Amino acid sequence: MISFLQHNPTKLWFGEGQIRQLKSELGGTGKNVLIVYGGGSIKKNGVYDAVLNELHKADAHVFELSGVEPNPRLTTVKAGIELCRKEEIDLLLAVGGGSVIDCVKAISIGVYYEGDVWDVISRKGAPDRALPFGTVLTLAATGSEMNNISVITDWEKNEKRGWGSPLVFPQFSILDPTFTFSVPRDQTVYGIVDIMSHALEQYFHRTENTPMIDRFIESLLITVMEAGTELVQDLHNFKLRETVMYAGTTAFNETLSNGTDGGDWGSHQIEHAVSAVYDIPHGGGLAILFPNWMSYCSEIDPSRMKKLAVNVFKISPEGKSELETAKEGIAALRSFWNSIGAPSRLADYGIDDSKLDQLVEKSFMKDEVGTYKVLNKQDVREILLRSM
Amino acid sequence: MISFLQHNPTKLWFGEGQIRQLKSELGGTGKNVLIVYGGGSIKKNGVYDAVLNELHKADAHVFELSGVEPNPRLTTVKAGIELCRKEEIDLLLAVGGGSVIDCVKAISIGVYYEGDVWDVISRKGAPDRALPFGTVLTLAATGSEMNNISVITDWEKNEKRGWGSPLVFPQFSILDPTFTFSVPRDQTVYGIVDIMSHALEQYFHRTENTPMIDRFIESLLITVMEAGTELVQDLHNFKLRETVMYAGTTAFNETLSNGTDGGDWGSHQIEHAVSAVYDIPHGGGLAILFPNWMSYCSEIDPSRMKKLAVNVFKISPEGKSELETAKEGIAALRSFWNSIGAPSRLADYGIDDSKLDQLVEKSFMKDEVGTYKVLNKQDVREILLRSM
Repeated sequence: MISFLQHNPTKLWFGEGQIRQLKSELGGTGKNVLIVYGGGSIKKNGVYDAVLNELHKADAHVFELSGVEPNPRLTTVKAGIELCRKEEIDLLLAVGGGSVIDCVKAISIGVYYEGDVWDVISRKGAPDRALPFGTVLTLAATGSEMNNISVITDWEKNEKRGWGSPLVFPQFSILDPTFTFSVPRDQTVYGIVDIMSHALEQYFHRTENTPMIDRFIESLLITVMEAGTELVQDLHNFKLRETVMYAGTTAFNETLSNGTDGGDWGSHQIEHAVSAVYDIPHGGGLAILFPNWMSYCSEIDPSRMKKLAVNVFKISPEGKSELETAKEGIAALRSFWNSIGAPSRLADYGIDDSKLDQLVEKSFMKDEVGTYKVLNKQDVREILLRSM
Repeated sequence: MISFLQHNPTKLWFGEGQIRQLKSELGGTGKNVLIVYGGGSIKKNGVYDAVLNELHKADAHVFELSGVEPNPRLTTVKAGIELCRKEEIDLLLAVGGGSVIDCVKAISIGVYYEGDVWDVISRKGAPDRALPFGTVLTLAATGSEMNNISVITDWEKNEKRGWGSPLVFPQFSILDPTFTFSVPRDQTVYGIVDIMSHALEQYFHRTENTPMIDRFIESLLITVMEAGTELVQDLHNFKLRETVMYAGTTAFNETLSNGTDGGDWGSHQIEHAVSAVYDIPHGGGLAILFPNWMSYCSEIDPSRMKKLAVNVFKISPEGKSELETAKEGIAALRSFWNSIGAPSRLADYGIDDSKLDQLVEKSFMKDEVGTYKVLNKQDVREILLRSM
């Protein structure tokens, strides 16, 4: 293991009806609250009304910012910052999935930052303060509800950046599985892929002596696959929504990375490049790219892919080379994702190799891609080509 | 799952050399710090010097309370409270294992409590404030370093009580595996039994739909057994100490109980009665009592014991009744504990049935014993008799 600090300040309220905690989490009456949401599905499924109802109990002055995009945009972040300053907002409340939460994280840190908020997102600025915020989660996927990570896209530059700061942990998050009942099948699938991808990224670490964390990751993957298979056929099943929702948070709140180097995250970086150029769903992109990353990297070092194959996909290693076992595991992962309806080729989104150079370039927003295998541009090109 | 709040405020600094965090955790120079420790082993193994060295860097005024007992006593708690009041202590620092930490928790809450601190421990008082404290862990066992639970014994009354309060989470805990190198073999074994018992208590819950948490518990048990087998033969092995130390904290910081009813804890309650009367090591008592609790309760409902047998002890359930499989798993647990040197009968501590009535009575300090099976006095008597 590697030395680490384990400390997550977010208060996670999990379970049906936990929206009732909102009033006390506001920390007083008469607050100016900006609720931030996406395309308006929360107005159809009752979540908006449930939130407003609790805010009114606390005599909050409610302001709204709606229309946050699936890949949230810098322009929306800036609009939110202006609104917070103008209306003297006390607390931001993200009501939605990871996109909305990521947008709120950027707004929260931008409010007190004097320069351009993109400096913070591109890791140049050094903010020292953020506006407090909470979340009401409506989509199990990114884990953003209990971590300090955010991904924002600048469409003028076609740049999609992941960033983080100790200042942007949610103060509280409310997770009611019934709030995810109306998530359609395709979004549910993308969520499952995203959750599993977070677990997998963390599995592909290079730290020795992490037996318990490795088993925790395997446990989470097995659980999500077991529940996911049924969930996509039964979208209103409380128990399955509950299982996937809690796994989604656990997959990316450091439970799976305490004491490791944090994992690889190369597949995420390449996917961010693809969705910065083509605006495809993050989970869809991962379902295509991750198995190709695994396959490519297993040809260099199959050890972790083999371990995954045996422990998660129950592939017998007998009479097989490490690489053969690894490849069978990768095929099983691909097969599971296909079985629930995830895409397997970039062509499924109409993407061909016409912008290949641009995709490779954009994958290198940070100096290096990946840690399990540090990828160079030729490696990334090959992974993208295999994914076309 | 059951609705829950996931929020642990303790900052856990894990890894070799993390004692260097102590200075910044003090939150300023010139503080009055009371270090609390046990029989003085920390003066032989270098931990005391390492702690003092860091405290001096922060210009702390250091006071000491030593001699905390393995089953920490109310009299020691009261002495600590007096000392804190007299010397106007700013921060308590537990340097030791669970006993020392539990003692410090009681001191921290007693300092500002106007009545008798035993009121708080026996859950009659309602404290509203506690003196901040940190811990430097020297024994992997109780998990007290990252939870808000404490166990204190009043020897005048022969009463051993577990209690908890949201006010007694450590502010920080420093876990350096090298600080546990000098723990002797028997204490190491008791620690392993204690850690596994915490995981097992939480496994014997009655909540439906907890697949991931159940797998996390199984993962932790398998990991501790794997490392424990080697560790008792190789006490200075860093990787094994590291694995067991991190498992010890994870076993009892709510990672294994989020969304469940919390588990049974009947074996712990019975063990507290036995060690309140006979002052035997907690881990030793658990190694004797827990398999007998499991065996007795499996005769009423073997479902969880069978699941444990199959998933952790890899017992094949084929051609066997649920109870038969369960019993094979229990035998495997007993056999593992015996293999590392844990006792299997109360007679090993010279305990016979002469105080049986008293042991039964003292097991019912709280109204009920256990939740997986709510035990009555006849049940507890039977479990104790099987353990003689």
